[in-house]
Amino acid sequence: MVDKLQPLLVLGPPLILPILEAQYFHKYSFLKAFSSELPLHQFLSKQNVDPSSIQAILCNPLQQVSADVLRLLPSVSIIVTTSAGTDHIDLAQCSCLGIQVVCVPGDQADDVADMAIGLLIDVMMKISAAYRHFSKWGPSRPSNLYFGSKLKGRRVGIVGLGKIGKKVAKRLEALDCRIMYHSRNEKPFITYPFYSNVVDLARNSDVLVLCCPLNEQTRRIVNREVMLTLGKDGVIVNVGRGALIDEKELVRCLMEGEIRGAGLDVFENEPTVPKELFPLDNVVLSPHAATLTSDNFTEVCELAAEALEVFFSSKLPSVPLLDD
Amino acid sequence: MVDKLQPLLVLGPPLILPILEAQYFHKYSFLKAFSSELPLHQFLSKQNVDPSSIQAILCNPLQQVSADVLRLLPSVSIIVTTSAGTDHIDLAQCSCLGIQVVCVPGDQADDVADMAIGLLIDVMMKISAAYRHFSKWGPSRPSNLYFGSKLKGRRVGIVGLGKIGKKVAKRLEALDCRIMYHSRNEKPFITYPFYSNVVDLARNSDVLVLCCPLNEQTRRIVNREVMLTLGKDGVIVNVGRGALIDEKELVRCLMEGEIRGAGLDVFENEPTVPKELFPLDNVVLSPHAATLTSDNFTEVCELAAEALEVFFSSKLPSVPLLDD
Repeated sequence: MVDKLQPLLVLGPPLILPILEAQYFHKYSFLKAFSSELPLHQFLSKQNVDPSSIQAILCNPLQQVSADVLRLLPSVSIIVTTSAGTDHIDLAQCSCLGIQVVCVPGDQADDVADMAIGLLIDVMMKISAAYRHFSKWGPSRPSNLYFGSKLKGRRVGIVGLGKIGKKVAKRLEALDCRIMYHSRNEKPFITYPFYSNVVDLARNSDVLVLCCPLNEQTRRIVNREVMLTLGKDGVIVNVGRGALIDEKELVRCLMEGEIRGAGLDVFENEPTVPKELFPLDNVVLSPHAATLTSDNFTEVCELAAEALEVFFSSKLPSVPLLDD
Repeated sequence: MVDKLQPLLVLGPPLILPILEAQYFHKYSFLKAFSSELPLHQFLSKQNVDPSSIQAILCNPLQQVSADVLRLLPSVSIIVTTSAGTDHIDLAQCSCLGIQVVCVPGDQADDVADMAIGLLIDVMMKISAAYRHFSKWGPSRPSNLYFGSKLKGRRVGIVGLGKIGKKVAKRLEALDCRIMYHSRNEKPFITYPFYSNVVDLARNSDVLVLCCPLNEQTRRIVNREVMLTLGKDGVIVNVGRGALIDEKELVRCLMEGEIRGAGLDVFENEPTVPKELFPLDNVVLSPHAATLTSDNFTEVCELAAEALEVFFSSKLPSVPLLDD
């Protein structure tokens, strides 16, 4: 049957896969490289798949699509990723090879902004920290364990005032926070104070919310200096990408109280999370889940299917692919 | 020394007590009934305190100040509670006996509204649920465990559109939710749809947020009928008082999936929390902590001290109470 189906290499398990597979089993042969521990070329060989037969890759943001991977697959012409970011894909190599990269994140900016606010409230009001100690809760509850901080009036520095950053700002306004921002350039028509570098932003903020894309300019934009400048009362929320922060330094600062707390939906080496973070009461962790709403799920599924459909129908207009 | 100090009966440990005690040890004898397992009259007798010497009570919302308690203490003239609500105090009895009740909650409406939003985002986006399973997180993470729901566009019914309810509404607007409400009467100048009963509100809502005071009209205002009407996709957030909900029915509905989830900062018999709630992934629990911010803490401390000061100075203008 496989020879009648288009091979679709699935690198990293996009969460939409089960639905996509149920809907398109008659159209694509889903090559689930992620489910094997073998290196890719061995996996394909074991599946009797000729690497040069593969034209399309489906991936999620947790899976690196490196030049090495692309070299193995000389016919790949499209990569569909269920993410807004493309930092996991070697774009330079794709450009050289004429590979089209299609992002189908769904309409997730609202969800990411909601996650940022959820994490911020949680860290500031210590919801998760209290929850962890809940079983001990009683008349003898420790008197200061749960003391959180008012959000009202806090100075929040947004790093990256794009589509998501603006939605974060809108929500922070409703919380009566004072908003300032850093981005590549000062935005026209925006009245929030602009800081051209993140250290200055940190100096004037109680909280930093990171929601910019990851690229060479923004990698580790929050380094030890930024964290020490933010200071012992400072909180960091990251809903962008893990590598926006120097994660080792973040762990150290959190453990040593150099900053007060953090709410993290993203990590440098996902799905790995620094194990030191788990026992910390000043940290709230979320598994890159901001966009994992069932509403997005349906939308992403449709968009990914459509992107593949358009690609294959334009590539091979005369070859019947359907099995029935 | 005790005879030179004003006895202050502390019923339930207000979290401000350590600071208040440090500041006023020379003025008040803090009778910490909460720290003893003895019945109140035995506790006082063991402390060699004549019950009729007690004029003032300091309490928190977790401690019932019943008619029985007041009968033991014939000279009580003031109750200072570190809460906005007075449902834990027998107000009718206070009124008969001419006892003044002073609430010193601090400026907490913003914090309670923030807690409501934090709990709502957590339940909808399953932050705590994902966190609990975080240690299992990896490439093999269960594909639908974390699927939350978009907040954007959800219909949120607010029960009680007072000071807190309005602040909740303001935040929900920033989240692009659709707002409607129930309260005793329709509010002038408010354009959100009004429902004169909670069942109708539930029928038209995806989420109910409870932030009204507890009184005989609102006790168990969310009963089984309301929950079944809200339905299997419905979420309840309670930052008001535990007894606004029929808690037994709530537990049953959550366990049986009759409603989808709940975020609870308050419980019917605090500090007791129904033990069935702890293992549920569709529930986020917080230990009545909405107002426990360090900013409020300072304010409440000052207000409580001031209330006692004013009372004692007006009651006993000529008796020197200071020990120095």
